[in-house]
Amino acid sequence: MENAFSDRINDVPKSFIREILKVTIDASIISFAGGLPNRKFFPVKALQKAAFDVFEEAGNEILQYSNSEGYLGLRQFISDRYRQRDGLDIPVEDILITTGSQQGLDLLGKTFLNEGDDLIIEEPGYLGAIQAFAMYRPRFHPVAVSEGGMDTSQLSQVLGERQPKLLYTVTNFQNPSGISYSDANRRAVADQIRGSSCLIIQDDPYGDLRFSGERKVSFKRIVPENTVLLGSFSKTVAPALRLGWMVAPPPIMDKLVIAKQAADLHSDYLAQRILHRYLCDNDIDAHIATIIAQYGKQKEAMISAIKDYFPAAVQFTNPEGGMFLWITLPEGMSSMTLFEAAIKKKVAFVPGTPFYVDRKDSNTLRLNFSCSDEPTIVEGIRRLGASIKELF
Amino acid sequence: MENAFSDRINDVPKSFIREILKVTIDASIISFAGGLPNRKFFPVKALQKAAFDVFEEAGNEILQYSNSEGYLGLRQFISDRYRQRDGLDIPVEDILITTGSQQGLDLLGKTFLNEGDDLIIEEPGYLGAIQAFAMYRPRFHPVAVSEGGMDTSQLSQVLGERQPKLLYTVTNFQNPSGISYSDANRRAVADQIRGSSCLIIQDDPYGDLRFSGERKVSFKRIVPENTVLLGSFSKTVAPALRLGWMVAPPPIMDKLVIAKQAADLHSDYLAQRILHRYLCDNDIDAHIATIIAQYGKQKEAMISAIKDYFPAAVQFTNPEGGMFLWITLPEGMSSMTLFEAAIKKKVAFVPGTPFYVDRKDSNTLRLNFSCSDEPTIVEGIRRLGASIKELF
Repeated sequence: MENAFSDRINDVPKSFIREILKVTIDASIISFAGGLPNRKFFPVKALQKAAFDVFEEAGNEILQYSNSEGYLGLRQFISDRYRQRDGLDIPVEDILITTGSQQGLDLLGKTFLNEGDDLIIEEPGYLGAIQAFAMYRPRFHPVAVSEGGMDTSQLSQVLGERQPKLLYTVTNFQNPSGISYSDANRRAVADQIRGSSCLIIQDDPYGDLRFSGERKVSFKRIVPENTVLLGSFSKTVAPALRLGWMVAPPPIMDKLVIAKQAADLHSDYLAQRILHRYLCDNDIDAHIATIIAQYGKQKEAMISAIKDYFPAAVQFTNPEGGMFLWITLPEGMSSMTLFEAAIKKKVAFVPGTPFYVDRKDSNTLRLNFSCSDEPTIVEGIRRLGASIKELF
Repeated sequence: MENAFSDRINDVPKSFIREILKVTIDASIISFAGGLPNRKFFPVKALQKAAFDVFEEAGNEILQYSNSEGYLGLRQFISDRYRQRDGLDIPVEDILITTGSQQGLDLLGKTFLNEGDDLIIEEPGYLGAIQAFAMYRPRFHPVAVSEGGMDTSQLSQVLGERQPKLLYTVTNFQNPSGISYSDANRRAVADQIRGSSCLIIQDDPYGDLRFSGERKVSFKRIVPENTVLLGSFSKTVAPALRLGWMVAPPPIMDKLVIAKQAADLHSDYLAQRILHRYLCDNDIDAHIATIIAQYGKQKEAMISAIKDYFPAAVQFTNPEGGMFLWITLPEGMSSMTLFEAAIKKKVAFVPGTPFYVDRKDSNTLRLNFSCSDEPTIVEGIRRLGASIKELF
């Protein structure tokens, strides 16, 4: 049977994170390995009411097949929000509702990538993006990101040598590293892309989860013709609904809609209607404010515990939002080796490996701070610090 | 921008049916063009209650990320139903919940098809399958289907000349033609496939909608190693939820789950929980019985009106279930030309063209009978009969 499969699927390695999450099912383990929003903030009662109300108001209409582009009311909400929050004028026709923003990545791969096409991706970068694009067998060109943003000299080198079709970025509180691109860095990246045929994918699942600092400029403002935006309700409302969106200009949108139809006809229409009703009847910004107040405190607790318990040679990012921070151990130390040691002390994280295109063993690791309360964070970091010290 | 797109997406023509459906928005047109289940049978109140109850019982758990395979309870329901209805023993591990059965087609394309791989598809065949597979640029080998099933001599010829990876079938009340494969035909097809590396995809969205005749044997019973099943709740409960499933043995399932993760992580988990609660608290077979009683009457009304109003030279299928029947005009007549004439008389249908891989103009057309009541059907067929007579 093995040789019956496509080359693309035979090339994809088993999910590393799945294997790690299996280890962390043990309830005595403090896990910083997950990537989930904190379930205690899900608006259960408000969504229950929204669901009840849309059934009452719209009856069987909300249960029928719908259009591939998505519910107009929801797209209008997204358009309005871009205007209010970013001063961006995004017509509803440029918005496509997707089955989570993960699907946006698949549709972009399908719409743009022939086998062997060049694609730039952040390093470290979002695992789900690597997986989605890998299905279309591009040539990956990783470009380093660190505090402040993308390495523009590496970017310049790739753009000088290749003609990449896509440049994948998570500019706000990146998964896995928590870093954000500064305004200056965004402008420098945009200057290099402007006028080329390369499309910047600005994937922004965490942008609303800012607990300090100023909101940054969107690529859509500084290099609009070359920008596709991806967004998600997974971190602000609830991930189970699998509702995200993409923003693209008409010639691209025409193709994306074809890809969307072939993929799943349309995203869950009942969920779109429930979400829209929820967004109309509730103050989403007040809801987000409660989430980030708590995430911010948890991040502070983690940073403070790291300072207390980690050797000084260990580096860490200090994100202004999101759900993750990134640890860099001294050169030559392996986070895979640390993982084995840490599990014995009942604390877990994700080693950096899956966030590199070449899946190399590395001295980096990802810590999630959205799902543990402050005392648990302190205790987990204490255990992890002890594990690191053992390896020194 | 055009040359930035992938070859696959540039090759896909604009959806023909979308264009046709635009014409039929005019309320004075009687439309047999749609492919929708009749919304009057959607269990609005029961799903409203199920939604309310799962929020009440499971709180924030139903709003979190879930596993890619789908909700275990729902997969168990599907497994139990195969046992009760078909005597098939399908372990839950072999069942993957998909975002509509349309996604099952995309995942199969992704998992099996390299560019240029051979694939057998029914002719006429389901448009959505042609679209989904076309994204992976296989070589299509259409094999004719007609009353009784697949043309086994054509099948034998393709199998003699090529090594197809996939054979796509809708064995019950096929879309577009309404035909079903007889038991003998299924066994003859299975005999040709058994022992080969070709996988039969048995896509069965309509199987439960049988209003006459006996339930037929599943390929899963007669050639299990070579069979993948696709199923859907769209025609029995509600399409808006976008919930379907696929059944495949473990080595294939491992790959499908990887493709599923890359596509959308998992299908809407809230919808899975609502659907499961609905299925547990209601008698789905009693619900289906009401649907098919009405669809059966509407089909009878259409057949009877065809006999009254169409010239005798026009052939038609007489389905035992499903939502469609298929008209064959005399040789040399064009259903595209008929479409233009019929619109003037305020009646619409889908010409056969999009159901052929080569999209040739043809003398065939699809009529939907699920969405119009009996007087409307009689009047629409009268108008269509008059249009046909004009062309004679």
